[in-house]
Amino acid sequence: MKLTLVGAGPGDPELITLKGIRALQQADVVMYDALVHPDLLEHCRPDALKVYVGKRRGAYSCMQEDINPLIVHYAQQYGHVVRLKGGDSFVFGRGYEEVEFARQHGIETAVVPGLSSSYAVPASAGIPLTTRGLSESFWVVTGTTKAGQLSRDLYLAAQSSATVVVLMGMHKLPEIMAVFAQQGKNETPVAIIQNGTLAEERMVVGQVDSIEQLAAERQIDNPAIIVIGAVAGLSAGGQQAELAHLITKHTA
Amino acid sequence: MKLTLVGAGPGDPELITLKGIRALQQADVVMYDALVHPDLLEHCRPDALKVYVGKRRGAYSCMQEDINPLIVHYAQQYGHVVRLKGGDSFVFGRGYEEVEFARQHGIETAVVPGLSSSYAVPASAGIPLTTRGLSESFWVVTGTTKAGQLSRDLYLAAQSSATVVVLMGMHKLPEIMAVFAQQGKNETPVAIIQNGTLAEERMVVGQVDSIEQLAAERQIDNPAIIVIGAVAGLSAGGQQAELAHLITKHTA
Repeated sequence: MKLTLVGAGPGDPELITLKGIRALQQADVVMYDALVHPDLLEHCRPDALKVYVGKRRGAYSCMQEDINPLIVHYAQQYGHVVRLKGGDSFVFGRGYEEVEFARQHGIETAVVPGLSSSYAVPASAGIPLTTRGLSESFWVVTGTTKAGQLSRDLYLAAQSSATVVVLMGMHKLPEIMAVFAQQGKNETPVAIIQNGTLAEERMVVGQVDSIEQLAAERQIDNPAIIVIGAVAGLSAGGQQAELAHLITKHTA
Repeated sequence: MKLTLVGAGPGDPELITLKGIRALQQADVVMYDALVHPDLLEHCRPDALKVYVGKRRGAYSCMQEDINPLIVHYAQQYGHVVRLKGGDSFVFGRGYEEVEFARQHGIETAVVPGLSSSYAVPASAGIPLTTRGLSESFWVVTGTTKAGQLSRDLYLAAQSSATVVVLMGMHKLPEIMAVFAQQGKNETPVAIIQNGTLAEERMVVGQVDSIEQLAAERQIDNPAIIVIGAVAGLSAGGQQAELAHLITKHTA
């Protein structure tokens, strides 16, 4: 009985690791989430059981409390379960809860990290989270805490020189920008990247005092990554950047 | 003429992406760093030119100022250059400088992100950087700034509830721990992982007021990742954790 957590990466199915592919090839059961690209399932053995446990936009969804015992059930019945999750399973992924639950039921566990969208999506879009002279650290927060409020850490992050990355934060965009505006950072560059690393990728670049309107005009919404800091301006402002970015992408 | 930056991941040669492998297979020239696993070069075409530009322990080394024009030279002479760098090229990797320099010389560029050691090494060792109830954000800083001093961001990070990850910080360990001690965080768990994801991986777990001695006793040194925060204690304390971790690793 074994559980292997595999991070599927940020979207592009080629951004999974070789180790992740090998785990998929060996799996008896693959339990996968909504954000996992369907092409990744082609790495599975033809006889592997594939179980969808994702949730998205009110469709049928599994709660975490349902997934944990399911993992144990499949491991006991079939042997090797691969849990394939978007991004990295240990970065806001609740993967640790699954590993712990499985261990308590006597199941051997292993973790194959995946590319976290937090830095891989900006990188693919040409934005480095750190670069000499502009940023010497980066801070990754989620827009949604368990209590539904803005993380208190964000107030400290806004005072720092760190590049701040907010995951799952589009519904809190006005509140987040207000925190930075309070620190006198109205002109700090902000980039928002939707569907990063996929063909449908869209990016908007503005600054703290303009990004809300820009994002609304272009209807940028989740799943999106918000990058706040000088590095977000490296691809220059607005439409020009978007164009240049699209050109780079399509000639790549 | 093209430059593709490829992140090689944290150490284990299976932790490169499929997209990274495909770029290596197409490269005319591969320029690689010291922290890149030699097995990765087996993905190159037999006729590809392989150029070592790493630096380590005073051996022959290239300065960044030398590497940039070398990339341009090889792209002009041979066509497609892959720049293979440990971890991710855009997380403290100076990859952006290489991309910018190449662009200024009319070379098309692309970025294939790699697994950053900052979270992938802790994840492989069983430590999630975030987990419900313990940590809702993480902050990645480098121990070595351009000016050779501790990053000022570290003082803000120490006040937050973020998991703090310090890369290349072993030579500043006493100063870093002092910053946390000043915040009354003597008992906050700290984990240090050396040679993460490789067979030679070693981990030590302690707390802010004990980790220096523990690391010295076990001679843990760079390349190492320092993780500070409640999540660092998830693999329990000291030797027991090290043992359990080794067992998990060897049965994985």
